[in-house]
Amino acid sequence: MKANFELISIGNELLSGKTLNTNAHWLAKKITELGGFVRRCTVIRDDLEEIASTIKEAMARRTGWIIISGGLGPTYDDKTLQGVATAVGRGLKVHDDALKMMKEKYEKLRKLKVIERVELTPARIKMATLPVGATPLPNPIGSAPGVLLREEETSIICLPGVPAEMEGIFAESVAPVIKEGIKGAFYHERSVHISGIIESDLAPIIEEVLSSHPFVYVKSHPRGIEEGVSRIEIQVTATAEDATIVERGVEAAIAQLISMLTRRGVKVEESEHKAGVS
Amino acid sequence: MKANFELISIGNELLSGKTLNTNAHWLAKKITELGGFVRRCTVIRDDLEEIASTIKEAMARRTGWIIISGGLGPTYDDKTLQGVATAVGRGLKVHDDALKMMKEKYEKLRKLKVIERVELTPARIKMATLPVGATPLPNPIGSAPGVLLREEETSIICLPGVPAEMEGIFAESVAPVIKEGIKGAFYHERSVHISGIIESDLAPIIEEVLSSHPFVYVKSHPRGIEEGVSRIEIQVTATAEDATIVERGVEAAIAQLISMLTRRGVKVEESEHKAGVS
Repeated sequence: MKANFELISIGNELLSGKTLNTNAHWLAKKITELGGFVRRCTVIRDDLEEIASTIKEAMARRTGWIIISGGLGPTYDDKTLQGVATAVGRGLKVHDDALKMMKEKYEKLRKLKVIERVELTPARIKMATLPVGATPLPNPIGSAPGVLLREEETSIICLPGVPAEMEGIFAESVAPVIKEGIKGAFYHERSVHISGIIESDLAPIIEEVLSSHPFVYVKSHPRGIEEGVSRIEIQVTATAEDATIVERGVEAAIAQLISMLTRRGVKVEESEHKAGVS
Repeated sequence: MKANFELISIGNELLSGKTLNTNAHWLAKKITELGGFVRRCTVIRDDLEEIASTIKEAMARRTGWIIISGGLGPTYDDKTLQGVATAVGRGLKVHDDALKMMKEKYEKLRKLKVIERVELTPARIKMATLPVGATPLPNPIGSAPGVLLREEETSIICLPGVPAEMEGIFAESVAPVIKEGIKGAFYHERSVHISGIIESDLAPIIEEVLSSHPFVYVKSHPRGIEEGVSRIEIQVTATAEDATIVERGVEAAIAQLISMLTRRGVKVEESEHKAGVS
């Protein structure tokens, strides 16, 4: 299960339709490129019980990595760390290194004249109050540090909801930990764009390709019908522990697909290529 | 629980980082505007067991409405209806009206010369094979009909993953059903954009506003620090059964907030107004 990931996005704004969940999309892309497999993403409100029970459910599914975004800030409804502490049955404690990171941040803001005084108010100390045993991850953009905590087989990582902060912490502190943790997983992807066939006629062709290449995944994405011509994107992907195997598997499946489609008079318009290797 | 919603988005492409989940965002916005409350959104892969267990979990939370998008198409990995049938313990059966809708669609495509013959292949019949007792919802854009099924207190609605098809079916057949089902719920929302205060200093002010207006929800969204000035958007919302109450509550909370902020020398830059009434 070591390369299995679940994402948890926390924030009422994601469920009221105010904010588009670009964080989960960004994280899923990065994790896939690192060779990880994102199995589920759960979006929940700023509700302590929901946060704790969602984390517990993910752990019960023996997920290797739980990546949480949102709810690390200073306001009353930032409840992520309390939720993590509840889920793993630990207390919360002011973390010295986290507090030091925060002080430096506010000192910087004071020098930039954004604030007048560096006071450690309760709202600020809250952001440095972590579940016991957790490690703070420096935030290169904002003030709330990220958090890494290991519980049994699961690594729980908490990131802020502000996209630039989440991306900054992920690039600096999370990607290297994931790379090390799931060493040896490779991902390969290729897409072909075709025209002149509708999805229900493509379905049996995909099934035939899959029966010859069982560990490859083939997905069709209909792109609409214009001026009497149906367009579809077909995406072929594979993840495995051997880079040569995933690449050869995907390329062989694509070759068979193109040959079957060409024989039927379907036009293969273009082919995109993408590989992410850990 | 009648105004409580959960969204389930199905598709590997949403978890590999290929596709941004704009469907869940669109649905959340529409449902909120209709007066509904979206409590959770779960994004899962095209996996039969995952689909069935996710639906069962949502029903166990006594959710009034489960809105599913994705997995209604003709290919091997479109497993939503099989997942719904498994979750509610019913069989699957070709639905006469659904089959008629499909025939008409393919007849149209033949006239437009997109396809040569209207054949009811297994891949096409699959899209008209619904859980026993379900109602097909006409698809004004593509071929796979939407599906409505009632099980105990829960209404389960399945929509295609192609955004235009999902939106078309929702507008035509789903919004009226929701409007009728949650009659009498009103939603009101207003945002103010402020500058000159950072989030950790805003936190205690928000808490004071909330203690005076307990049924109103206040959320701060930091918008970054530029040239030494911190900008934040504050969003105030409420949902209740009385339109006057929600509007007055939100406006009173906004007035208190602005007065407290102005007293502290914070600049109130603009105020957006939005109301969705069912």
